[in-house]
Amino acid sequence: MAKIKPRTFKGTHDFTPQEMIPRERLIQRIKELFRKYGFSPMETPALEMLEVLSGKYGEESDKLIYKLDYKNDRPHDRVALRYDLTVPLARVVASHPEWLMPFKRYQIQPVWRADQPQLRQGRFREFYQCDVDTIGAEEGLADAEIIALTVDLVNILGFTGESRQAVVLVNHRRLLESLCEFAGRPVSDLMVFCRALDKLDKIGIDGVREELALIGVTSDGFARMNKVFALEGTALEKLDALKRILPQNQATHEGIQALQNIFTILDALKTPSERLRLEPRLARGLDYYTGTVFETIVPQQPHLGSLAGGGRYDKLIGLYCGRDLPATGTTIGLDRIFAAMEQLNMIDMSTFTVTTVLLSAYSDEEIPAALKILTAMRDHDLAAELFPTTGKMKKPFTYADKMKIPYVAVVGPDEVADANNPKVALKDLRQGTQEVIEIAEAIRRIKAGMTNNTFSGITGCLDHIQKF
Amino acid sequence: MAKIKPRTFKGTHDFTPQEMIPRERLIQRIKELFRKYGFSPMETPALEMLEVLSGKYGEESDKLIYKLDYKNDRPHDRVALRYDLTVPLARVVASHPEWLMPFKRYQIQPVWRADQPQLRQGRFREFYQCDVDTIGAEEGLADAEIIALTVDLVNILGFTGESRQAVVLVNHRRLLESLCEFAGRPVSDLMVFCRALDKLDKIGIDGVREELALIGVTSDGFARMNKVFALEGTALEKLDALKRILPQNQATHEGIQALQNIFTILDALKTPSERLRLEPRLARGLDYYTGTVFETIVPQQPHLGSLAGGGRYDKLIGLYCGRDLPATGTTIGLDRIFAAMEQLNMIDMSTFTVTTVLLSAYSDEEIPAALKILTAMRDHDLAAELFPTTGKMKKPFTYADKMKIPYVAVVGPDEVADANNPKVALKDLRQGTQEVIEIAEAIRRIKAGMTNNTFSGITGCLDHIQKF
Repeated sequence: MAKIKPRTFKGTHDFTPQEMIPRERLIQRIKELFRKYGFSPMETPALEMLEVLSGKYGEESDKLIYKLDYKNDRPHDRVALRYDLTVPLARVVASHPEWLMPFKRYQIQPVWRADQPQLRQGRFREFYQCDVDTIGAEEGLADAEIIALTVDLVNILGFTGESRQAVVLVNHRRLLESLCEFAGRPVSDLMVFCRALDKLDKIGIDGVREELALIGVTSDGFARMNKVFALEGTALEKLDALKRILPQNQATHEGIQALQNIFTILDALKTPSERLRLEPRLARGLDYYTGTVFETIVPQQPHLGSLAGGGRYDKLIGLYCGRDLPATGTTIGLDRIFAAMEQLNMIDMSTFTVTTVLLSAYSDEEIPAALKILTAMRDHDLAAELFPTTGKMKKPFTYADKMKIPYVAVVGPDEVADANNPKVALKDLRQGTQEVIEIAEAIRRIKAGMTNNTFSGITGCLDHIQKF
Repeated sequence: MAKIKPRTFKGTHDFTPQEMIPRERLIQRIKELFRKYGFSPMETPALEMLEVLSGKYGEESDKLIYKLDYKNDRPHDRVALRYDLTVPLARVVASHPEWLMPFKRYQIQPVWRADQPQLRQGRFREFYQCDVDTIGAEEGLADAEIIALTVDLVNILGFTGESRQAVVLVNHRRLLESLCEFAGRPVSDLMVFCRALDKLDKIGIDGVREELALIGVTSDGFARMNKVFALEGTALEKLDALKRILPQNQATHEGIQALQNIFTILDALKTPSERLRLEPRLARGLDYYTGTVFETIVPQQPHLGSLAGGGRYDKLIGLYCGRDLPATGTTIGLDRIFAAMEQLNMIDMSTFTVTTVLLSAYSDEEIPAALKILTAMRDHDLAAELFPTTGKMKKPFTYADKMKIPYVAVVGPDEVADANNPKVALKDLRQGTQEVIEIAEAIRRIKAGMTNNTFSGITGCLDHIQKF
């Protein structure tokens, strides 16, 4: 058979153990946080009926949905890959009218978009999203909690200090309605208006002006918008100013009241105000948002893009079940966050294995004894391996050294001379020390030397963890 | 907009929190075990180039690969959904010639097959596999370890006791070559021979006889095979018998020697022999196996199908990099195991949320105090929620009762009268007791009442865990 080039599809990538070990740690941290906030795990299939997905995200996004080449007589039976985790959630909730509200779930799964990948920014065609959503709760506490959780997360991960401090931007679709009107356009233009604003990061302020001009925003209108964008101060100060500047209508009133309430709750939840910014420019591109919207960025590192984003979508679930259910949530971009942490040197990727101790039998004679010791170590929750070949003692040491395995335990004829009390020659590769000790003592030493280097109770993986 | 039916694609399914809470626990247990054995995490994209996947599994399996409807000029650039985790692993290893051997990885991800779903057996079109593989190690220790790990896993999960005891069947492709010859067919027929044998569970022994007749196995040949299948005794006894019965050739000799070695290692690893069975009928359907093959079943529950299966594939990686690398591994069928555990009543699915304590403010007045208490509880790693409405005190209790939240903490005017020393009225819904106590004491009581009910340090989720 001809050799096949081991290619991958553009915009996708492998996670080798070197990346996957810190990545699993990151996912674990995120899950812990989600659970503390009372969100329970849920998963949905990658494959969804196309009609469930299309028409929810907006025209441009719909084009990015991957479809299966799956033959079926009925055209409405087409199958597609999920584009986000919000629409599948809406589908699930709609099919469970018996569920008690509020319903709070988290979901950590990949999504697919037929987009142009930008690998450095962590923008892929296949990427993981971590979503939390609260269904069945009116605007207020639920939205504030999701913002508070996001701030907690970036704090835990280390997005702190001047150059890498993350900030959650907050706005409201009702205020965007007013802004649209203030710019001289009717509310019926809101979706195109929001989509144009949402491109700010990609096409810059001049690009946005051009896009807005296409829907009839004059330079006067744009100047009025800019006055709003230039507002400074705390969230409550900005809201006061907006109350004076924006058109005096229902939309302005409702938007301001909703945000005042949310910022008051955030204060009671002890969310540090310097991590929050009321941002009248923030639009979010997707059509389904109806209220509060939020997005997390690192202001000093604009090239990183947004790390998380979400908002309230009170009309989406109604599309499936005929009865509207209030809903709010956020997506945390796992690949974006990982890429950001890598670039900002927040993750140590020098570990190639979870193995903590490499056993090595001196000759084939000692293999049975080494296997018994191997089982004993694993029974004590150590991540342990036996080097597969014997005879050349340099080989396992070179392997351990290059793989960053911190301990090597040699099982030689002297060590196992007393079958009732076998020993090992334990070498600590980080300290450079070696000693012949009993198995129980070796286990105790390794555990003591690896405090904090555990995953779900298993002693394994080196120091990269401590940066979290 | 017209209402859209919230349908799912046949053969896929949602995991609601009720299923997902024990499922996450199950995945966590599997990961812990993989890590103890020194396997490190890895992930690959769902989307693979079609040419990487096709031609590896056998003709019938190739038809089950889902392809994307993705337009591209070059026909060899077609994109498909991964069919298993072994072929992607081979691709990754082939593209990293710099990696040290042995390379041990685990991978827990979904795969897709355009098959006829059988939901009761846990056979889906989209399902999770948990794979462990060791690359670059000759036959022997690596294979024995994977068998030992599988036995460990089914033990940990509770597949013990007469009616639900799981057993790992073991065989060798070289012995199947001899068996093929013994049945009167040349070794060139091995693949069709194996695929026919592999259907035993699906089509029964008569079906297999008919399939074998099609490739020229006479009734005499089939009778000879049956003599082999009827062998009884321990693995080593059966191997002795096979040595006498099967054709005296290189294949018989190598197969027997390899298995003798593996069973000797398993004994040294203290793997209980009653969990192992040398099974000359075991073939495994996929083309890429070259040596030891294994499969886990629950003999008393044949309708459950196989829970895990794998084997040695020394020629697969060579297809991508031109140089053969020895390899062995197993797939653990997560959905099969979950379905089996559900049917055998090994999982309690009565929990709807991870939340441990539901806070409830008596009136809007107490909301600020309740929010502070909420943050304090979360800071102490409790999974906590605040009920979103106030006024009707029955509502949060009904919610907690139905959602199986074990504690409700009411924040009323008396409790927070002293702002410096706020209290809650803590109700233990399982015990039926209620007491007004300080926050720190409430946290301590809840933690004490929920020992063992933690996930990665977070106190949450009820008793279903204890069955594991």
